[in-house]
Amino acid sequence: MIPDTLTRSLAEICGPGGVIVDEDRLLVYESDALTAYRHRPGAVVLPRTTAEVQGAVTAIARHGLPIVPRGAGTGLSGGAVALDGAVVVGTARMNRILEIDAANRRAVLQPGVINAELSAAARPHGLYYAPDPSSQTACTIGGNVAENSGGPHCLKYGVTSRYVTGLTVVLPDGSVAKLGGRGREAPGYDLVGLFVGSEGCFGIATEIEVGLLPLPEGVRTLLGIFDRIEDAGRAVSDIVSAGLLPAAMEIIDGPTIRAVEDSVFAAGYPTDAEAALVIEFDGLEAGLDGETARAAEFCRRAGAREVRRARDEAERMALWKGRKKAFGAMGRIAPDLLVQDATVPRTTLPAILKGISEIGKRYDLVVANVFHAGDGNLHPNILFDRRDEDELERVERASKEIMQLCVDSGGTITGEHGVGLDKKHHMPLIYGAAELDAMWGVRRVFDPSGVMNPGKVLPEETAPGWPGHGEGRGAAEGEGAGVAEPAVAAMAPP
Amino acid sequence: MIPDTLTRSLAEICGPGGVIVDEDRLLVYESDALTAYRHRPGAVVLPRTTAEVQGAVTAIARHGLPIVPRGAGTGLSGGAVALDGAVVVGTARMNRILEIDAANRRAVLQPGVINAELSAAARPHGLYYAPDPSSQTACTIGGNVAENSGGPHCLKYGVTSRYVTGLTVVLPDGSVAKLGGRGREAPGYDLVGLFVGSEGCFGIATEIEVGLLPLPEGVRTLLGIFDRIEDAGRAVSDIVSAGLLPAAMEIIDGPTIRAVEDSVFAAGYPTDAEAALVIEFDGLEAGLDGETARAAEFCRRAGAREVRRARDEAERMALWKGRKKAFGAMGRIAPDLLVQDATVPRTTLPAILKGISEIGKRYDLVVANVFHAGDGNLHPNILFDRRDEDELERVERASKEIMQLCVDSGGTITGEHGVGLDKKHHMPLIYGAAELDAMWGVRRVFDPSGVMNPGKVLPEETAPGWPGHGEGRGAAEGEGAGVAEPAVAAMAPP
Repeated sequence: MIPDTLTRSLAEICGPGGVIVDEDRLLVYESDALTAYRHRPGAVVLPRTTAEVQGAVTAIARHGLPIVPRGAGTGLSGGAVALDGAVVVGTARMNRILEIDAANRRAVLQPGVINAELSAAARPHGLYYAPDPSSQTACTIGGNVAENSGGPHCLKYGVTSRYVTGLTVVLPDGSVAKLGGRGREAPGYDLVGLFVGSEGCFGIATEIEVGLLPLPEGVRTLLGIFDRIEDAGRAVSDIVSAGLLPAAMEIIDGPTIRAVEDSVFAAGYPTDAEAALVIEFDGLEAGLDGETARAAEFCRRAGAREVRRARDEAERMALWKGRKKAFGAMGRIAPDLLVQDATVPRTTLPAILKGISEIGKRYDLVVANVFHAGDGNLHPNILFDRRDEDELERVERASKEIMQLCVDSGGTITGEHGVGLDKKHHMPLIYGAAELDAMWGVRRVFDPSGVMNPGKVLPEETAPGWPGHGEGRGAAEGEGAGVAEPAVAAMAPP
Repeated sequence: MIPDTLTRSLAEICGPGGVIVDEDRLLVYESDALTAYRHRPGAVVLPRTTAEVQGAVTAIARHGLPIVPRGAGTGLSGGAVALDGAVVVGTARMNRILEIDAANRRAVLQPGVINAELSAAARPHGLYYAPDPSSQTACTIGGNVAENSGGPHCLKYGVTSRYVTGLTVVLPDGSVAKLGGRGREAPGYDLVGLFVGSEGCFGIATEIEVGLLPLPEGVRTLLGIFDRIEDAGRAVSDIVSAGLLPAAMEIIDGPTIRAVEDSVFAAGYPTDAEAALVIEFDGLEAGLDGETARAAEFCRRAGAREVRRARDEAERMALWKGRKKAFGAMGRIAPDLLVQDATVPRTTLPAILKGISEIGKRYDLVVANVFHAGDGNLHPNILFDRRDEDELERVERASKEIMQLCVDSGGTITGEHGVGLDKKHHMPLIYGAAELDAMWGVRRVFDPSGVMNPGKVLPEETAPGWPGHGEGRGAAEGEGAGVAEPAVAAMAPP
């Protein structure tokens, strides 16, 4: 609980409906979608404007409490968890689209606007917002900015940072900075790009300017069915190597297919298959059939036993169904799920997929893969029951091995879910002292007193000035020190 | 001149052929392509490897001298000028392409590789490097990274920051940091994006990983001839609003057309026209003719008196000639040229072009516009003779008015040439204390002692701790204080 004086201040600033201190209501804010981490916040405040955010941040900081910015809470890295009684600043009431400037293909919006709603609002202008996290019907643009979110179509269109052109941000000291804006690159150092993906550690974005794209003229969707997942991986690699540029390429593996087909979401995928590959092309109508035919041919050559092509929007939705419902379906076959998010060079996909499968077998675990194959962004999911202690231990060891396998293959620890609380102890796997010092440095430029989302992204023991700083580090030199235990997550959407 | 002890140290580190102290040879390094600023460096050192850069940076810093990184010297903002006897660290001998990983569409190269050479090396793999500054046959990728360079085709493909996925950098203290790498977004704060466009103030990139694109299957090029430049501006705006995505849209105005046609570069543009608009589409063959026909129709509707379409590569080159040779041709009609680089919202183009023309007339000056119209990135060039003092004064006043006009229309002071020495005093036109403080902050994270390219990008009087810091500032609040005199540049390529 926070001091009454602070509660009163926050209520004065944001109105009595804008402050939550009731224990039951705070329960909702206890975790993000990575429910393994649960911490009750001291309070939640829901400002409506930049000025209210300024007021709230100033009041909370004056009381010496940490601040955690929060969008819809769909994050998968524990980034929006309130440690140490922190006060959550939620953007739920900052959900207005302030401007759609169709001629210049830009929009300005508050951070609490839901991703899919921006595209819906842009549609009458023939435009849409490209980054499409799987949670796009729930997640907010502010959260997308914090996590630099991706999505299936980011293969062709790129992630959030490509689209954010301006930000109004409230800094931890309560001041307001206007970074970029009005399209294109801003002069001087790229503070917009730096802020995007800063996971709530630098401040709170209160107005966001994004670029919009014209709606594609046409779309074609393919589904390839494979008996071996490596073959699906090879098809992906071959398609890219041939110079084709699909909008999305997603692999759903055998265990996932069976989970989906056993569920109410049955998509009609054959349950004895070991991989389904969804490929989508979009763009000018004229070129699409040719591209689609070429991709289908690559699937067949890689060993697909069947290639289906959607003939209309209903069939397209059906082909996507197995991908979109995968995480929901897994929840029906195991109570707990560990979602990883490592990214590997695309050409290593066949070998890595095989390696992951072997690790799963060795630890007698069900590992279900459903992922952005075109980007090499894996989402291996370990299904388990946390009440089984032996299984839990095997999950942790397998998870660590999978991450190490990806890093050893030239990959990295997270492709799009962010580091947050969950992966911060893995940062020394891929960064040495020089990189971590620079990250601490830029964080302290924005937040010298360390009040903004503390305990996230960077492990404390790497902080300059921290007791023992610099000991046992040196991943950049290949020592790979500092591997922490992976967290074990309960059920979470992708 | 630098101390002999330093000369000897540098020669030991980089070999005797890697150190230039001879006054005549230093002349070449006196300026970049913005020749208005001339300062002789204390010495030039040309390392070949990351280790040699480390050694050189450490040795120079130990002698308390400032360091200026330099690529090919084609920059247009005075960014590579060596103030106060600084030592230039040139990348001319770091010109190896270290790896082309065609399957993953990435390349790793040293910073001194020339932009066009990377595309040439990638071509046998069916790939190319997208950002194409007009100086691409001379400029280096390291310089492109420092300036976050654009080019005509960045309308569709985006600027340098979209393609740089990893950097090995030598920091001012001689340490090496590895930022990102192996494709996609790196976990944690985006130091790669922050370093790109940092104009040599954060360190020296010694290895650069970039993404490559598949060569487009086909290209179509159009030339529209207009009697009024506003009409060409309207055609650009209409084409974009209609949802077409050309690869490039470039406007060449009447004065530029006449300069080109009077020169040895004559491109066959009608000399009584007031604007030529080059439009290019690329991508799958199948869609190109339709797009090109639609764009041609928009040109006609906007009032084009003639629309030509290139039927083959030779004709395509001819259509581009007027654009590519524009800056060279201008050098033949006036000894001096002031190049500006403001960017404005695309929809304001017709009004701004009219405004610039009026300013030119009012000051009795020839203003020639040749620019990236699709991006709203203007390059108004004022032609003059610096020996005429009255004219010189008019140029400075007109230039200031043009920049103010662009900023007042929601534009910004530089689209792609960088801030450097030339535009640093304009930064308070668009940024207030919060933004400038954050920029100083991140700069000091990388360069706490201020040895790396000092005197560039940020005006000293805005530095925290500088006497009088914070006085007279507040551009973010709309006061627009601190406008400095524009520099007057001699002849320079675009």
